[in-house]
Amino acid sequence: MINYEKITKEELAKEIEKLLKEYNKENCIYKLSEIYDEGLSNENSQILENELKNLLESYKKGSIGIAQINPIAGNIEYNAQKVVKYIKHAQNIGLDLVVFPELTLMGYPIEDTIDRHPIIVEENVKWLKAIAKITKETTAIVGFVEPRKYDHLTGKKYFNSVAVMQNGEIKGIIRKSLLPTYSEFNDYRYIEPSPVVGNQPGETLGDFDSEKIQQCEAVNLINGLKYGISICEDCWNNKEFFNDTTLYSIDPIDELSKEKPDVFINCSASPTRAKKEQLKHNMLSFISKKYSTPIVYVNQVGAIDNSSFDGSSRVFDKKGKLLARAKSFQEQFLIVNPHMNLGKIYPLTKGLEKTLTEAKVYTLEYEPDLERTYKTIIQGIQDYFKKTGFKRAVLGLSGGLDSTVCAVLLTDALGKDNVFGISMPSKITSQESKSDAEKLANNLGINFTEAPIKDMVEVTNNCLQNLFKTVEEKWNCRYKQSFTMDNIQARSRAMFLWGISNEFEKCLPIATSDKSELYMGYATINGDMSGGFAPIADVPKTKLFALARWLNENRDVKNAIPEAIILKKPGAELAINPKTGKPLIAEDALMPYEFLDEIIWRIENKKEHYYDMLDSEFLYEQHNPVSKEQKIQWLDKFYRRMAAALYKWSILPPSVIVDSRSINKYDYKQPITSSRINYKGLDEKTIEDKIQTFLYL
Amino acid sequence: MINYEKITKEELAKEIEKLLKEYNKENCIYKLSEIYDEGLSNENSQILENELKNLLESYKKGSIGIAQINPIAGNIEYNAQKVVKYIKHAQNIGLDLVVFPELTLMGYPIEDTIDRHPIIVEENVKWLKAIAKITKETTAIVGFVEPRKYDHLTGKKYFNSVAVMQNGEIKGIIRKSLLPTYSEFNDYRYIEPSPVVGNQPGETLGDFDSEKIQQCEAVNLINGLKYGISICEDCWNNKEFFNDTTLYSIDPIDELSKEKPDVFINCSASPTRAKKEQLKHNMLSFISKKYSTPIVYVNQVGAIDNSSFDGSSRVFDKKGKLLARAKSFQEQFLIVNPHMNLGKIYPLTKGLEKTLTEAKVYTLEYEPDLERTYKTIIQGIQDYFKKTGFKRAVLGLSGGLDSTVCAVLLTDALGKDNVFGISMPSKITSQESKSDAEKLANNLGINFTEAPIKDMVEVTNNCLQNLFKTVEEKWNCRYKQSFTMDNIQARSRAMFLWGISNEFEKCLPIATSDKSELYMGYATINGDMSGGFAPIADVPKTKLFALARWLNENRDVKNAIPEAIILKKPGAELAINPKTGKPLIAEDALMPYEFLDEIIWRIENKKEHYYDMLDSEFLYEQHNPVSKEQKIQWLDKFYRRMAAALYKWSILPPSVIVDSRSINKYDYKQPITSSRINYKGLDEKTIEDKIQTFLYL
Repeated sequence: MINYEKITKEELAKEIEKLLKEYNKENCIYKLSEIYDEGLSNENSQILENELKNLLESYKKGSIGIAQINPIAGNIEYNAQKVVKYIKHAQNIGLDLVVFPELTLMGYPIEDTIDRHPIIVEENVKWLKAIAKITKETTAIVGFVEPRKYDHLTGKKYFNSVAVMQNGEIKGIIRKSLLPTYSEFNDYRYIEPSPVVGNQPGETLGDFDSEKIQQCEAVNLINGLKYGISICEDCWNNKEFFNDTTLYSIDPIDELSKEKPDVFINCSASPTRAKKEQLKHNMLSFISKKYSTPIVYVNQVGAIDNSSFDGSSRVFDKKGKLLARAKSFQEQFLIVNPHMNLGKIYPLTKGLEKTLTEAKVYTLEYEPDLERTYKTIIQGIQDYFKKTGFKRAVLGLSGGLDSTVCAVLLTDALGKDNVFGISMPSKITSQESKSDAEKLANNLGINFTEAPIKDMVEVTNNCLQNLFKTVEEKWNCRYKQSFTMDNIQARSRAMFLWGISNEFEKCLPIATSDKSELYMGYATINGDMSGGFAPIADVPKTKLFALARWLNENRDVKNAIPEAIILKKPGAELAINPKTGKPLIAEDALMPYEFLDEIIWRIENKKEHYYDMLDSEFLYEQHNPVSKEQKIQWLDKFYRRMAAALYKWSILPPSVIVDSRSINKYDYKQPITSSRINYKGLDEKTIEDKIQTFLYL
Repeated sequence: MINYEKITKEELAKEIEKLLKEYNKENCIYKLSEIYDEGLSNENSQILENELKNLLESYKKGSIGIAQINPIAGNIEYNAQKVVKYIKHAQNIGLDLVVFPELTLMGYPIEDTIDRHPIIVEENVKWLKAIAKITKETTAIVGFVEPRKYDHLTGKKYFNSVAVMQNGEIKGIIRKSLLPTYSEFNDYRYIEPSPVVGNQPGETLGDFDSEKIQQCEAVNLINGLKYGISICEDCWNNKEFFNDTTLYSIDPIDELSKEKPDVFINCSASPTRAKKEQLKHNMLSFISKKYSTPIVYVNQVGAIDNSSFDGSSRVFDKKGKLLARAKSFQEQFLIVNPHMNLGKIYPLTKGLEKTLTEAKVYTLEYEPDLERTYKTIIQGIQDYFKKTGFKRAVLGLSGGLDSTVCAVLLTDALGKDNVFGISMPSKITSQESKSDAEKLANNLGINFTEAPIKDMVEVTNNCLQNLFKTVEEKWNCRYKQSFTMDNIQARSRAMFLWGISNEFEKCLPIATSDKSELYMGYATINGDMSGGFAPIADVPKTKLFALARWLNENRDVKNAIPEAIILKKPGAELAINPKTGKPLIAEDALMPYEFLDEIIWRIENKKEHYYDMLDSEFLYEQHNPVSKEQKIQWLDKFYRRMAAALYKWSILPPSVIVDSRSINKYDYKQPITSSRINYKGLDEKTIEDKIQTFLYL
C-alpha cells in the first residue's frame, strides 16, 4: 500500500500517470478521489486536484461533490474546518455544487443544547456567513441551525436549515418541514417545522435580510439546472410508497416536484438501525422514478452518543436506478453527476444490504446483519471515545461471552494497546474461565492481568454480615434468599475497573451487559452494568453467539475467541446452583435465551402482547417441547422482570443503538412508576364486573 | 380529630347535625366534602351524600365536581377505580358534571409505552366504554388515550382525548390540539395534534362510531349550559397574554369562545416548577376575563417519576377572579358552581403563591419557595416508592448538609421507621461528623447505626495498588494526583447501602448528590451519586442551606438538624487538603457556592453565556472582592467541569424536578459527545482568520 500522506510530488505524479493510462476517465476520477481521501500534503493536493479538474471538464454541468462528513455535536469550529476543506476541494476541481449533511455546522442531533446555550447558534450563524464569503463559482449547501426572527414569534425559536451559498453570498435558505419526533429523534423539542418547502421567501429570513438573498423560486437554479432541496425526514413521507400511511400531512418532495427540478437533493443525518437500509433504498428509488428526477441523498457518518450514522450517501437516476453510493461508516468525498450518469457504487456494509426476513431475526441465523452490527458498534465506540477525549478502555474478562465479545470489539475500535482486560476471579470462578480469558487476551494481543477479588469480597461480606445483623434488629424483613453475595462480587469487580479509570489517563471502564439480560434486569447495578460505555447493550444473547462466530471467521486474526467460550452455557458465575453444586447457569435463572430473545423480538417489532405469544408457536418450540405451564411461567417471569428492570434501563451508560427497536433510554421512554401495567389485559366482562365491585366498595 | 374512617352511623349523623347548625349552606358543603375525602364506610357515605345532595339542590344547574386524582401511569385498573368512585359520588350528590384530569385512565405522562405495548391502549378504551355504561344523569369527563382509525393513517396513532359521558353513553370526544414537546413533555412523540377543537365530528371517531355519538357543536350542552372543553396545553397559547410570542399558531380557547360557551373546562396534568404558579394563575384569570367566561381547571396531583404535579385545581369566574381552588399536593374532590358562584379557595402551598423576583432566587433568600420545594420533593419520594412498590430507604449519614437534608425529607415522606441512616466513617471522618450524624438520627427518630469503612477501604486500596503497578507497566500514563482514594471511600459506602437494599425487602438506597455538585461533576459514580432515587438532585447548595433552616423552623419537631451541620463548610471528607492538613472543603475544590449557584441560575434562566457573566456583577461580588483573574478562573472551571459532567447527568437516578429548569435527563437533553462546545464564542474577525488558516492547511 502506498502511504499517500508521505508521498513525494514526483511519486504522486507518476502514480497519477499510471492511473490515467490504466483506467477510463470515470474510473480515474474515482481512483484520484480515493487518493485525495487518504489525505495529501497541500502541494500534492493541488497536483491531484488539477488532474481531477481536467478529468471533470466534460462533466462540468451538474457535477456534485457529496461531502459525507463525521461532525462533533456543538463543536462548530471542528465541523467548519471540514466544510472549508471540502468547499475548497470542490472549487479546485471545478464542481458545480458541494453538498453537506443535515445540520453540518452543528452536528445532528444537538438536542436541547441550543435552547440552553443560544450562543452556539449565534456562533454557527457567524461561521456560516464567514464560510459564505469564501465560496466562489462552486455552490455549497451547508446545514445549520437558523434562529428565527424574534419579535412576536409563533413557535419554536429555531429552524433546521441549509444555506445555498455561491460567489461569496448566501443565495437561498431551505428549511426542514417534517420533524421526526420518535425513537432517537427529538426534532420538535427544539425546531419549528417550516410551512414552506424549498427556498424560503425573503421576508422570513430575519437575520439574513442584509445578505441580500435573492428572491427565488422554491427550486435553486445552479449553472443552468434546477435543484429541489430538502432535509432528511422531508423525503420520508411519500403517500404512495408508504401505502397511504404516513406521519405527516404534507409531502415536501411532492411540492418541490411541481417546480420541475432537474435534480432532488436531500441533506440527511439518518442513523443505521436493523432493517432500515432496504426501506431507505426502496423509498429513494421509488421517489426518483415516480418524479422522473434523480435524487442525491447526502448522509452524515459517525456516531453521536447512542446513534451511529452509516453514511452510505447515494444517488438514484431518474429511472430509480442506483447510480452512486458512498462508503458505509467512513468519511468520504464522492463526486457524482446525476445529469450525466457519473457515479460509482461503493460496496455497502453487509447487513445494510438486505431486509432480514421475520423468521430469521430471532433465531441464531443473524448472519445477514452481523457485519453491519459489527461496524455500527465499532464506530459507536470509536466516536464516543474520540469525541469525549478518551482513548483507553479497561474491562473485566470473565471468560464468558459478553465480556469476550466486548473485548474483541474494543480491540478493533481502539487498538489492542489501548485495551486492558482484567480477569477477576472469585472462589466460584472455574479454572476454565480463567484460562479462557487469558487465551482470549493473548489471541487479541491486548493487555491482560489477573486480580482476584477474594480478599475484597471477604472483607466486604464480613462488614456487611455485621451490618445486616444490626439492621435486622430494626427491620424484620430480611430476605431468606438474597442476591447480595452475587452482587458484592460484581460490584467489587466494578470497583477495580473504576479505580483503574480514575488512576490512568483517558481510560474508561466498560459495561458488558447484553440486551437479553438487561431486559430481565439480570445485571448488577454498580457492577457489570456500570461503565463509561456499554458496547453490546442492544445486542441480544443469541445474536452475540452468532457475532462471536462471525468475528472468528471474519477478522484478520481468525479464531481469536476460544471455541470453549462460545460453547459454554452463559452464567455469571456469581452463585452456586444448589441443585447441581455447580455455578448457576443463566438460562436456569431466566429461561432459554432463544425463547427470551424471541419474546423481545416479538414485543419490539410486532408489538405482540402476552396472549399473542402464549397462543402462537415460538421457533424454540419447533425443536423443544414446551408445556403450556412452562410457557406461562416463562412469559410471566419475562413481564415481571421487565417491569422491574425499567429503573436499570434508566441508568444504563451510553451505548449504541443497533436493533430496529431498543431499550436505550434515548430511544425508548417509559415511566419507571408504570411498572404495574397489566400486560395481559382483561376482557370486557371482567372489566364490567370489576366496575360493579368498585361501585360497592 | 375525629377518625372518620371508623365513625359510627350515629356519630356521623350527630356531626352532620352540628355542622348544619353552625355553618351556612356553602360552608356545610365544604365541611361535608372534607369529611367525604377522609374516607367513609359505604353506609356512612350514603348518609353524607344524601345531606350533600340536599344542600346542593339550589345549586343544581351547573354544579361541577373536580376530581383531582393521583393516577399511576399505565395502571388502568387502579386509575379506573378512582374514576368510578368519584362518578358514583357525583351522581349520589346530584352534580351536573364530574371532571377528571388529562389522560385520567392512563396517567400522564405515559410516553412511548403505548407505542410499544398497544394493548394498554385497547385496555383503556375497554375501561372507558364500561365506565360510560355506569354513568347516569351526571355527566363525566374522563381523559384517555384514543386510538385513531387505522387504515391509511396520516400522523401518529393516538390522540390525547377526553370523553364526555352521560346516561350510559359516550356523548362526545374532545382531543388535545397543542402538544407540549419540550422540557419534561414529549407529547408529540406519541400523540397526533387534533386540527379540530371542542367536540370532534362523528366521522373521525373510528372505534366509537358504534357508540352512536351525537353529532354536536364544538361545545357540549349539559343541563342547559354550554361547556367549552379543552386539554392542558390547549389553554396556554393566548397571544395577547403572551405578548404575541406563543408556541403554536392556533388558540383552541379562542376558537371555542366563538361558540359562546357558558363555562370553559380544561383537563390538565401540569407539574409544578419554580415560578410557574403565578404565570398559570395570571393566565387563567386573563382568559376567563377576556372571554367573560368562567374557567374550570382540573389538574392531576401526585408524582410520576421525575415530575411532581401539584394539583391546586381551580375556578375563575367570568371577571377573572379566583372562585375556588383545591388543595396542593393532595387528592381532593372539590365541588364548584361557576354559574352560581359556589366555590372555596383552599390555601396554596407557599411558594406556589409567588413569583420569585430575579434578585432573590440565587441568593440565600430562597424562603418564598421553600414550602413548595419541600412538598414537591416529599410527594416525589412518596409516589416513587409507592408506585414502584418500595417502602424503606437506607442512606449514608455523613454529618454533612446533603445527607442530612435527604434524611429529613425521607423521614417525612416515608415515616421514621422506614428510614435507616448509616454513619460510615473513614479515617478522615472527624469526630464531629460522626456525632452530628448520630444527633440528627436521634432527633429524627430514624434507625441508625455506624459501620466503619476502614477495613474495606484498606483491602480495596491494597488490591488496587498492586493492580495499578501492573497496569502502569503497560500503560505509562498514571496520574500524578488522582481521585482514586476519594472514590474508593464513596464507593465502599455505596456498596454497604446497596448491600442492605439487596438484603432487606422493599428497600432503596438513596443518592444524596445536590444540583450544584452535579453541575460540577463533584459526585462519585457508583458512590454518592448512586441510588434508587436522588431526592435533592435539583436543589442547589445555597438553597439546601435555606431549606435546612426552614425545616428546623417549620417541622413539628423543631431543630431536628443540629446547628453545627448547617454552620460547617461543606466538604466530602474524602481527602485531606495538603495546605491545611484538614479535610478538603468543597468550595476550595470548586468555588464559593453562592457564586457557583448564580452561574447555574443565570445559564438556566437567563441563558447567559461566558462573557455575559464575566462582564456583569454577581451578588457574591457585592460583599466579596473578586479579581478578574479569579472570576475567569471560576468561570473556566465551571464550563470545563460542566462539560465533563454530562455523562454523570445521563446516569443519574430518578429524581424530582423542582427548579424552573434542571439537568434532569428527562427535562434536559444534551449529547455527551458535545463536550467540546466553545461556550465563549468567537468574534467575526477571528472566525474569518481561522477560515483562512483552514484554507491553507
